[in-house]
Amino acid sequence: MRILITAGGTAEKIDDVRSITNHSSGRLGVTIANTFAASTTTIDYVTTANALKPRGDNIRLHLISDTQNLSTTLHSLLIQNHYDAVIHSMAVSDFTPATSLSEEQLLTVFNQLITKHHGNSLSMADLKNSMSELEQLPIPAKKISSDTDHLFLILKKNPKIIQLIKQLQPDTILVGFKLLVDVNFKKLHEAATNSIKKNDADFILANDLTEVSTDKHHGYLIAKDGSYGEASTKKEIAELIKAAITTTLKK
Amino acid sequence: MRILITAGGTAEKIDDVRSITNHSSGRLGVTIANTFAASTTTIDYVTTANALKPRGDNIRLHLISDTQNLSTTLHSLLIQNHYDAVIHSMAVSDFTPATSLSEEQLLTVFNQLITKHHGNSLSMADLKNSMSELEQLPIPAKKISSDTDHLFLILKKNPKIIQLIKQLQPDTILVGFKLLVDVNFKKLHEAATNSIKKNDADFILANDLTEVSTDKHHGYLIAKDGSYGEASTKKEIAELIKAAITTTLKK
Repeated sequence: MRILITAGGTAEKIDDVRSITNHSSGRLGVTIANTFAASTTTIDYVTTANALKPRGDNIRLHLISDTQNLSTTLHSLLIQNHYDAVIHSMAVSDFTPATSLSEEQLLTVFNQLITKHHGNSLSMADLKNSMSELEQLPIPAKKISSDTDHLFLILKKNPKIIQLIKQLQPDTILVGFKLLVDVNFKKLHEAATNSIKKNDADFILANDLTEVSTDKHHGYLIAKDGSYGEASTKKEIAELIKAAITTTLKK
Repeated sequence: MRILITAGGTAEKIDDVRSITNHSSGRLGVTIANTFAASTTTIDYVTTANALKPRGDNIRLHLISDTQNLSTTLHSLLIQNHYDAVIHSMAVSDFTPATSLSEEQLLTVFNQLITKHHGNSLSMADLKNSMSELEQLPIPAKKISSDTDHLFLILKKNPKIIQLIKQLQPDTILVGFKLLVDVNFKKLHEAATNSIKKNDADFILANDLTEVSTDKHHGYLIAKDGSYGEASTKKEIAELIKAAITTTLKK
């Protein structure tokens, strides 16, 4: 059996000294890898420099930093190898910094828009046009100057990396992750079901940040048909995922 | 002798799952601590959970995460203890996220401003007023929705933590750090001299990110009178700083 695991959190550069990072210790990914590594499984493990890493003869590490990196690495792995399952637990940034503006620069943009539209209200199309223009601006300095009371970061949405997986390997078993914060079971289940549909996933591990710590980790592994299993530690989550994949492969 | 060292990089929360982080492995701080720890020095060492940490019987670790934390911790340490020197090498965030807006929300803010000002251009005062109002908005969701093509982060400037040090202990020897990216010596020297004046520092270690790696670390330790020493590794930087502090203490 060969599986692909992603774990840890991406970091998107704002400038040469700052990033937007998605928190993730990578601890759950390590537990999942260890749970599979006990058997005769080859694991490609994609993670970041900062995250905890699993060790083992059959585990190959692939280090990435941002979503662009991740996309390129997954693309090449999914083209080169066939995976029985892909467990995509990495916390991937939804947005990437496009540009930043000082107060001075924002004021200029603002007043140019007012002049251009003769003092009339803007439509959403106008705003979106203006954003596209701002994105073309030269990238800010290597280190953004702190010489402004407020700084405006314009972030653009990243493509959904998870969707790449089934596009490139329609027959792999895809386990995605959905992390929400302080919601009830109904919301978690709903978000998981939506994610299954949107991303063509087979299972989604839905969890709530308020129920995640080093020792405990409450989560539901939700299947396409809405049925689910429940776990309260990282080890139990890993076991649930392994059982679900093994059962699906036997069918 | 008792000294205070700060090292690593702060992280400022955007929401419960994302932060803006300042890169810093903390490796230089560890080297500085080890250089001092060889002698009979007590070290209070302030750093972050992710950074590398020095070990030693005379090293006391104090963990912080963001600039607010750092400020509180430094305040209490500087009130409780007298330090012969403070070596402030931590990469501190210049800005903290104040609020975030979706495209929809930005459009509303925009058009409200246009209406309020009857389609006339805005002044800087108008913009600053509007920023102050935006800062009062309820904090965004626990996890920002990705349901917008662009996200706008408004960051507000942090107070300069380094200025706290001499305000609370005017007679300590303050060594600050200045990191620039891809500049010449003249720029580095100028930035260091300005920082010495603004922050009442005794020395500034000025370095350029393009000349910093795990093994090499080029830097200048610049004194109040403009004189300087040069180093090309972390160990040499640590030795320069130790020599400068020891000499100053003897005077």
